[in-house]
Amino acid sequence: MDRRRLSDSEIKSALGRLANWELKEGKLSRKFRFRDFNEAFGFMTRVALVAENLRHHPEWTNIYGTVLVHLWTHEVQGITDYDLILAGKMDVFAEAVKRPLPVG
Amino acid sequence: MDRRRLSDSEIKSALGRLANWELKEGKLSRKFRFRDFNEAFGFMTRVALVAENLRHHPEWTNIYGTVLVHLWTHEVQGITDYDLILAGKMDVFAEAVKRPLPVG
Amino acid sequence: MDRRRLSDSEIKSALGRLANWELKEGKLSRKFRFRDFNEAFGFMTRVALVAENLRHHPEWTNIYGTVLVHLWTHEVQGITDYDLILAGKMDVFAEAVKRPLPVG
Amino acid sequence: MDRRRLSDSEIKSALGRLANWELKEGKLSRKFRFRDFNEAFGFMTRVALVAENLRHHPEWTNIYGTVLVHLWTHEVQGITDYDLILAGKMDVFAEAVKRPLPVG
Repeated sequence: MDRRRLSDSEIKSALGRLANWELKEGKLSRKFRFRDFNEAFGFMTRVALVAENLRHHPEWTNIYGTVLVHLWTHEVQGITDYDLILAGKMDVFAEAVKRPLPVG
Repeated sequence: MDRRRLSDSEIKSALGRLANWELKEGKLSRKFRFRDFNEAFGFMTRVALVAENLRHHPEWTNIYGTVLVHLWTHEVQGITDYDLILAGKMDVFAEAVKRPLPVG
Repeated sequence: MDRRRLSDSEIKSALGRLANWELKEGKLSRKFRFRDFNEAFGFMTRVALVAENLRHHPEWTNIYGTVLVHLWTHEVQGITDYDLILAGKMDVFAEAVKRPLPVG
Repeated sequence: MDRRRLSDSEIKSALGRLANWELKEGKLSRKFRFRDFNEAFGFMTRVALVAENLRHHPEWTNIYGTVLVHLWTHEVQGITDYDLILAGKMDVFAEAVKRPLPVG
């Protein structure tokens, strides 16, 4: 995996797989909505650990249960595979943390 | 909710609901097994936030993907409602974080 | 401590003590700069624990080593003592995490 | 840096530099004492981020403000450079988080 800047058509193709993400001012963006701060920050911690592992970090804003994310790669001033991987991980972690509570 | 020490029969009744927990040397204990450190520490962070909220903290040991927990209430040298609540929260967070990965 | 909306003069007085904070669009704001993501997220985790303890949460944006914070109290649409307390804690945690590395 | 098992004399030499660590049952061990859970878990989060970056994780037990750490490298059943690096980082993070509170 390298930090090569992806072409417009590569990004378009990636957005086909990353259904909840969109391109905003050149960055891969998604707003996550959680039930509370605990879910939001639990999600953020798992992302933070992956970010250190990849040495690639998100731009993100947290307000209570929402986390607004913008991904791009500063070095190439564009989107790279690292952004796609981080986006995919975020989708998985968000689904996990939002798991419905058990009944009763 | 108070920090009253629960009686043996109250604890026994609680253990009926907390299926994965057992009493070990007077403490409520469970070993959680996760797939990796990311899951384990994501779980621990959610528990840490609840612990600060309740002002009641676990004794726990983490080795990579396992988290061994002992709960009791130091002030009363026994089990209280705080331990039952923390145990219940841990069960919910552990189920959420271990959610199966999406296929494909 | 209550969630009473502070008056303009009370806020002005508080800003005298919180030297690095300013009022921006009605919110108490500060930009923290750390050396790396590790410092920034270590700081954020300590703040998150206090936030759960106070049941009062920040609005914040993190980009690698910077954390931009806006504090206000949604319920009263203004600044309260909770915001002042959270700001003071953030100052302490930021100073601690940025402590110079030992020489050699 | 490799995961080569260090010799007894290499470990002895390293312990000369890591003044607060000792060898216990073949593992590099230290007990950290913090003022409260917030400090302890803030410390743990910074260590967790480094652990993911190094892909090398501690064995650790947390009880409120104490964190008892054992470091070794499972693959070689001994101490490696990874353990020394993690120990050094822990010392730096612990010093930072325990920084005295400002007067007044």
